[in-house]
Amino acid sequence: MNTYQPSAAAASFMLFDVLRAQDTLGQLPALAESADTDLMRQVLEEAGKFVGEVVAPLNRDGDEIGARFKDGAVTMPPGFRAAYQAFWQAGWPALSGAPEDGGQGLPTVLEMVLYEWLSAANHGWTMAPGLLHGAYECIKHHASDELKARYLEKVASGEWLATMCLTEPHAGSDLGLASTRAVPQPDGSFQISGTKIFISGGEHDLSDNIVHLVLARLPDSPSGPKGLSLFLVPKFYEDGSRSAVFCERIEEKMGLHGSPTCVMRFDQATGWLVGEHGKGLNAMFLMMNAARLHVALQGVGLLDAAWQKADAYAQERRQMRAPGPRDPSQAADLIIRHPAVQRLLDTQRAWVDAGRLLAYQTAIELDVAKHHPDPARRQQAGQWCALVTPVLKASWTDQAFHGSSDCLQVFGGHGYVREWGIEQIVRDSRVAMIYEGTNEIQAQDLLFRKVLSDQGRGLGAVLSGLQADLQGGNSASAQRTQEGFARLRDLLAAIESSGGAAPEKLYSVAGDFLRATTIALMAWAWSRLEAAGAPGNGSQAFVRWVWPELAMRHGMVLEALKA
Amino acid sequence: MNTYQPSAAAASFMLFDVLRAQDTLGQLPALAESADTDLMRQVLEEAGKFVGEVVAPLNRDGDEIGARFKDGAVTMPPGFRAAYQAFWQAGWPALSGAPEDGGQGLPTVLEMVLYEWLSAANHGWTMAPGLLHGAYECIKHHASDELKARYLEKVASGEWLATMCLTEPHAGSDLGLASTRAVPQPDGSFQISGTKIFISGGEHDLSDNIVHLVLARLPDSPSGPKGLSLFLVPKFYEDGSRSAVFCERIEEKMGLHGSPTCVMRFDQATGWLVGEHGKGLNAMFLMMNAARLHVALQGVGLLDAAWQKADAYAQERRQMRAPGPRDPSQAADLIIRHPAVQRLLDTQRAWVDAGRLLAYQTAIELDVAKHHPDPARRQQAGQWCALVTPVLKASWTDQAFHGSSDCLQVFGGHGYVREWGIEQIVRDSRVAMIYEGTNEIQAQDLLFRKVLSDQGRGLGAVLSGLQADLQGGNSASAQRTQEGFARLRDLLAAIESSGGAAPEKLYSVAGDFLRATTIALMAWAWSRLEAAGAPGNGSQAFVRWVWPELAMRHGMVLEALKA
Repeated sequence: MNTYQPSAAAASFMLFDVLRAQDTLGQLPALAESADTDLMRQVLEEAGKFVGEVVAPLNRDGDEIGARFKDGAVTMPPGFRAAYQAFWQAGWPALSGAPEDGGQGLPTVLEMVLYEWLSAANHGWTMAPGLLHGAYECIKHHASDELKARYLEKVASGEWLATMCLTEPHAGSDLGLASTRAVPQPDGSFQISGTKIFISGGEHDLSDNIVHLVLARLPDSPSGPKGLSLFLVPKFYEDGSRSAVFCERIEEKMGLHGSPTCVMRFDQATGWLVGEHGKGLNAMFLMMNAARLHVALQGVGLLDAAWQKADAYAQERRQMRAPGPRDPSQAADLIIRHPAVQRLLDTQRAWVDAGRLLAYQTAIELDVAKHHPDPARRQQAGQWCALVTPVLKASWTDQAFHGSSDCLQVFGGHGYVREWGIEQIVRDSRVAMIYEGTNEIQAQDLLFRKVLSDQGRGLGAVLSGLQADLQGGNSASAQRTQEGFARLRDLLAAIESSGGAAPEKLYSVAGDFLRATTIALMAWAWSRLEAAGAPGNGSQAFVRWVWPELAMRHGMVLEALKA
Repeated sequence: MNTYQPSAAAASFMLFDVLRAQDTLGQLPALAESADTDLMRQVLEEAGKFVGEVVAPLNRDGDEIGARFKDGAVTMPPGFRAAYQAFWQAGWPALSGAPEDGGQGLPTVLEMVLYEWLSAANHGWTMAPGLLHGAYECIKHHASDELKARYLEKVASGEWLATMCLTEPHAGSDLGLASTRAVPQPDGSFQISGTKIFISGGEHDLSDNIVHLVLARLPDSPSGPKGLSLFLVPKFYEDGSRSAVFCERIEEKMGLHGSPTCVMRFDQATGWLVGEHGKGLNAMFLMMNAARLHVALQGVGLLDAAWQKADAYAQERRQMRAPGPRDPSQAADLIIRHPAVQRLLDTQRAWVDAGRLLAYQTAIELDVAKHHPDPARRQQAGQWCALVTPVLKASWTDQAFHGSSDCLQVFGGHGYVREWGIEQIVRDSRVAMIYEGTNEIQAQDLLFRKVLSDQGRGLGAVLSGLQADLQGGNSASAQRTQEGFARLRDLLAAIESSGGAAPEKLYSVAGDFLRATTIALMAWAWSRLEAAGAPGNGSQAFVRWVWPELAMRHGMVLEALKA
């Protein structure tokens, strides 16, 4: 069984040759020093080694043995705790944290690449640390100084892991329905009571403490999302006593067995307010773009892992004669020589490489939005992130599942048995289409909140910026990009001119609009990759097997507006 | 958790009102009596009861507990043996068997409907009996009288279950590479030695004996498929002694845990030749259309089961406000009121109902091809089956997996946990895209063996026949069907006129050609369903969400021919 290996060389090519990350990041005073190409390259090398040597080999046991629940405690799969202890002690969780909090102050994009690789190598293991950076930002920006003094450093370093306790049995996509209660106490603390579900890493033995960030409702709060506040409840208090937060069970899931998905009961557990009353969702949603980009990169990574496995198998396994010249020394040809197999594999490269380019660019823009001295440039970067993030989250988690299923097909019957590890990727990747906002919600977010809310001006501006980037390029790929953008502009105009059209029509084609945007952006990404001389067959595969979908989606949206 | 329930009423509507099966089958002397509408309706009622009451409730344990292997023996999940004993004793395996072999002589289509329901209710349980009819036909048509005397009746009744031992570690899609040996013995028997893998039901406790049909190679046989012969090796001989056929292990799989997928070792096991030397594949492939149709109906059934679950959930679960009028008495609207959810569910109905129509029609044509007094009509029916079967197998197993994954999405995070049973359907259904010829092989079979082998004349004739069926119909759906057929004819013409085009080009778009054919046939199916007043939103969903793909596939094939 082939085990995933990250490629620092491929990431470096993308970051430094294609995207020129060093130029963009070098303009940011906060990152001027850390955005050094040699330094970043070295970090990628080290990260690749850690992921490939320490985390990837634990993936199979993570699935087969899984996290185990007994009497309120969760035992993680063999090797998970040791790998996590090595991970935080080596400083990986603090990669892009602020130096004043003990972080290394490196660009966000490096953290994103690290998490892409970790997810590809071992999605289950990566779930718990994957929540860390969001919790760190949340505490940093919203907690009181007193709370920060107690928790910020431990969370920044990753010595203590963290959770996000949002979902309840009847409040999933609709968090406004959450009913967990927070009762104020005379000493300024709160007693939190209620049940939260789907809490990744709610209980485990990876770290010595766990810091829970919990959405709950104060007495007399309004119903709906505006009545929700955010609270911090640790597993252990500073005096070593245990809080009244209990793991009631872990879910039996389709996959991701290495990550305990916990039902957590808060039984008058003492906690403290983070941020303002009634602003709980705001505090969490500030981290939304980073969290969704993170999930998009899980998709990119898992798809790459599936491609690696299937490609290796196709280069080795012989079945039947392929069309074209035969290999007379063998009774059958390599299955990579069968056009349907080659197409399938190349198509995944078309997705992986374009997804990387767009996601890394978005990670760079996250730092620009935060650190650029020019407010106009910050605003532009923020617009890019707002528009492109839901596209990446939805389309690349979708492709991770469907594309890894395609890769499974390369193995024939062997793909369906566990031995080869490919079916694990299909099972593991499925969840990413659901969490951090289902892909249907991403599509609505894109069309209604991001595009229509300003009559398409923001998207228009992003497209114009990308078009400027193509100037002078008269290549087929540049022309294709122009055509793609023209189709998006046409859709925007059609939606605008339909004016009072019933929103039902648009809701039913929000997903098509997101796919159309995806493919137009991929066309741009491939024009960049081609210009930089990206290796492989991805470009041709994009043109032949992905691109035709754009015209179809375009037509479906127009048709719905007419209907 | 909702448990699948078959609908005899829906099947009767499809068979008797839409397809008028009683008229077509009533013309066949062999079935003139059994094709009585009341009788067939009654059989469906009884079958529905058995499936819903006896087989469906075992599905969850089949997945959770699964088949278990110990010391060469396989213990089936709780209740599986009792259900199987009840099944064969009630005569269900013999439904469409010939009366002279103890069968009930009923139309094949009833058996197909039964197996659709069984697969939907419990795919794992159904695997073993699902192989029975093919083995029965194989023995009936190819075995010697002596062998028939010993095995035919037991296999016809289902008292003994049967296997097909084809695949070997290095011979999957390419059976010609198989190397299991058969050494002739002085008494006319053979000693079979070799290892077969992926043998569904190779060992179990459902029936008291198991009859293996094994592909093996005689000494001095040519290499490749023409050197393969077929042998019968039972688990127990008539004197009660055990044959040298051993189950070495069962595979750990992605799903289908209720069906033991066995590695079988033949250790100089005594068996007998079935059919002629070197004609082993021919004997097996005679049953191919029926077996593939069977798998297509697994897809239809599993998709229907997924739809049933998701639809029930969407009618009950409330999250967020939907566009359009609100339900003021509730804090959120039913998720079925969200257009993306409604679209997703209706799209599965578009596939299930069209798939049923096409598959039931094919099952009817299987009987016409066998029993019609007019050789021209038999030939025409055979052509339909040859052309439509790979389309059904590939497209409906594909849709079962992708559509059940869509249905999982309706449950949000709950879909990813086992409790709701929807993720089991996604895992179970995945295998059907692989077995009985991968879907890539179906596409090649359609384009190269079925369509291009006679320069598209056969497909043209099938389309003309269906067009005649539309006569006088000037409805939108009839026009759409005409347009679909025109696109197929255009593709045929383009392929023809490309003449010496390198086959690589065509191999890479065989899947697109199959999809185009699928959608054109669905257009025809929906024109029939609409004319018969089929209930539900499937027709509109087909037009809006499935139909646009045809133009895309059409374009992709044309583009590949140009490239």
